[in-house]
Amino acid sequence: MTFTLPSIPDITDAALAQRLQHKIDNKTKPLGSLGRLETLALQLGLILGTEAPELRAPQMVVFAGDHGLAARGVSAYPSDVTWQMVENFLAGGACVSVLARQHGMALTVVDCGVRHDFAPRASLVIRKVAPGTADSAAGPAMTPEQCAQALANGVELVKALPGNALLLGEMGIGNTSAASLLLSRLAGLEITDCTGAGTGLDDAAIARKVTVLREVLLKHPEARAPLEVLAAFGGFEIATMVGSVLQAAAERRVIVVDGFIASSAVLVASKLAPHVLQRCVFAHRSGERGHALMLAQLGANAAQQPLLDFGLRLGEGSGAALAWPLLTSACVMLRDMASFESAGVSEKSA
Amino acid sequence: MTFTLPSIPDITDAALAQRLQHKIDNKTKPLGSLGRLETLALQLGLILGTEAPELRAPQMVVFAGDHGLAARGVSAYPSDVTWQMVENFLAGGACVSVLARQHGMALTVVDCGVRHDFAPRASLVIRKVAPGTADSAAGPAMTPEQCAQALANGVELVKALPGNALLLGEMGIGNTSAASLLLSRLAGLEITDCTGAGTGLDDAAIARKVTVLREVLLKHPEARAPLEVLAAFGGFEIATMVGSVLQAAAERRVIVVDGFIASSAVLVASKLAPHVLQRCVFAHRSGERGHALMLAQLGANAAQQPLLDFGLRLGEGSGAALAWPLLTSACVMLRDMASFESAGVSEKSA
Repeated sequence: MTFTLPSIPDITDAALAQRLQHKIDNKTKPLGSLGRLETLALQLGLILGTEAPELRAPQMVVFAGDHGLAARGVSAYPSDVTWQMVENFLAGGACVSVLARQHGMALTVVDCGVRHDFAPRASLVIRKVAPGTADSAAGPAMTPEQCAQALANGVELVKALPGNALLLGEMGIGNTSAASLLLSRLAGLEITDCTGAGTGLDDAAIARKVTVLREVLLKHPEARAPLEVLAAFGGFEIATMVGSVLQAAAERRVIVVDGFIASSAVLVASKLAPHVLQRCVFAHRSGERGHALMLAQLGANAAQQPLLDFGLRLGEGSGAALAWPLLTSACVMLRDMASFESAGVSEKSA
Repeated sequence: MTFTLPSIPDITDAALAQRLQHKIDNKTKPLGSLGRLETLALQLGLILGTEAPELRAPQMVVFAGDHGLAARGVSAYPSDVTWQMVENFLAGGACVSVLARQHGMALTVVDCGVRHDFAPRASLVIRKVAPGTADSAAGPAMTPEQCAQALANGVELVKALPGNALLLGEMGIGNTSAASLLLSRLAGLEITDCTGAGTGLDDAAIARKVTVLREVLLKHPEARAPLEVLAAFGGFEIATMVGSVLQAAAERRVIVVDGFIASSAVLVASKLAPHVLQRCVFAHRSGERGHALMLAQLGANAAQQPLLDFGLRLGEGSGAALAWPLLTSACVMLRDMASFESAGVSEKSA
């Protein structure tokens, strides 16, 4: 199969941007005094194409998959933790579960390629390409067909979801390694600068991880185009997420990007369709080494800087869930705050 | 009248801190991987004295007052904006109003000394010491009796409020000037470093503001003790807030500190009773020059760093309201997340 890229047009709309800015500027507050909340409100208005954006039925999707490379000791945890954590998500005990509940947000877990057979459950969607990727130190993590399948799965997933906002979560022991490899190759950065502690490696273990990842890069010198790079290094959960990001962008959903892994999926998607980034809100700058570099690659500038800087390095979508109420706040500010005129408040003296 | 300082004991509890840390460390996540959310959860547990903290009936209180010094042109807005914004808070159209509504949070506006007579309203509490402070460039902003009255008002206010969390908001044209003066004198800092754009002054106007504030400081060389400094420079809304902070701390409520003005009240309170700071969560680092210095004075270190860095400079309690769901998230994480044992998830290999 081949993957058909959804159409993701430029949503720049100077007239709407001007109307939104005018509306923000006339709220009862000094000009610009809500800082980052104002740029967020402007972006949400542009994504949803309205001066009165309203976020409906936010969907937290946790993409899960296993990594053949994990057998090389690149993670502090065994691969079994992937399926155990999927069970934890479904049982409601994981961080993203409790935060999704706090915010009244639907949570869907997708088995994109976990090395485990799950019993069917509400909130669990099985889109298993294979039980884990192959070891990228020995060959490509997935075949081109598997990669296309995962991308298509991601597209179909989003088509079936209600609402206008997608929050990206993930689980996969070994997936910081995949994300580091994607960043290094796609951005042309040194692998040492892209590699961090993941779930909690010490310095010696990080050095070993870097050595492994450097060998993996040398194993795939020919992988240069985004989907080749994705197939060489990526996980099934990352490839499925890329498909979902592309479809969500095509539908003009608000995409709330979690940490290092979710950002790596957005990086791949943006190489295929740059306007994806117009739809992305970066929830946080994580504690994982390389995430700041990744965000810079994604053009997270002053207007689009990450909302939180909490030193998070959990993944799961926990940072996206934590930041979610800030997006709602930006919308209610835009919709419900009074203007100087409507409230009868004196404006600044000229 | 003289003001009686409530008793604010040290709530350090090494045994509880250890139990909390143990509970956090055994949640199904890599050690420390929730970063700032973990230190927040630990602090909330210590304030509320429990391993299962639960925030109940959060109270947003907006303290309002006018400033005699405003007549010297230190603000971009006329003093009338103070009462107009109070009407806006009560009508539900101000930023803090819409955010309080978003979070299901009670909002009380307190007339601590606004130059206006308000019609009685639900949610409006009249504790007017006088219709605005005196001009601190000509003499003390308030008499010692007025200062003591405002402090006592703040204490009584909090005694009457339900719940276990107080969010600090304020409104008062001219009050960044008062806060800059408090910071400069109490911390021994240059007034230029403590003075910013407030509601939106340009560079020339900031320079004029600094000149005025320097003269005010020279006018009150004898004001050195915290309550003398407060009476010399402070607003009635700041003094009332100091009283409320002290009482909230005495009752072990969680105190959510907004921006520059709210922090100046906490600075005064902490000079009277240092353990106040144990109960304070700093919601954000504002865009107002001097706030970073203020936070450093308040010992907002790595574990207590402000939750948001949004470049806010609105006041009203808007930043405290924005950050509120993060406190709730810290509590649900602590209460509801599974442990490795309860979820059957493998721990990190040693």
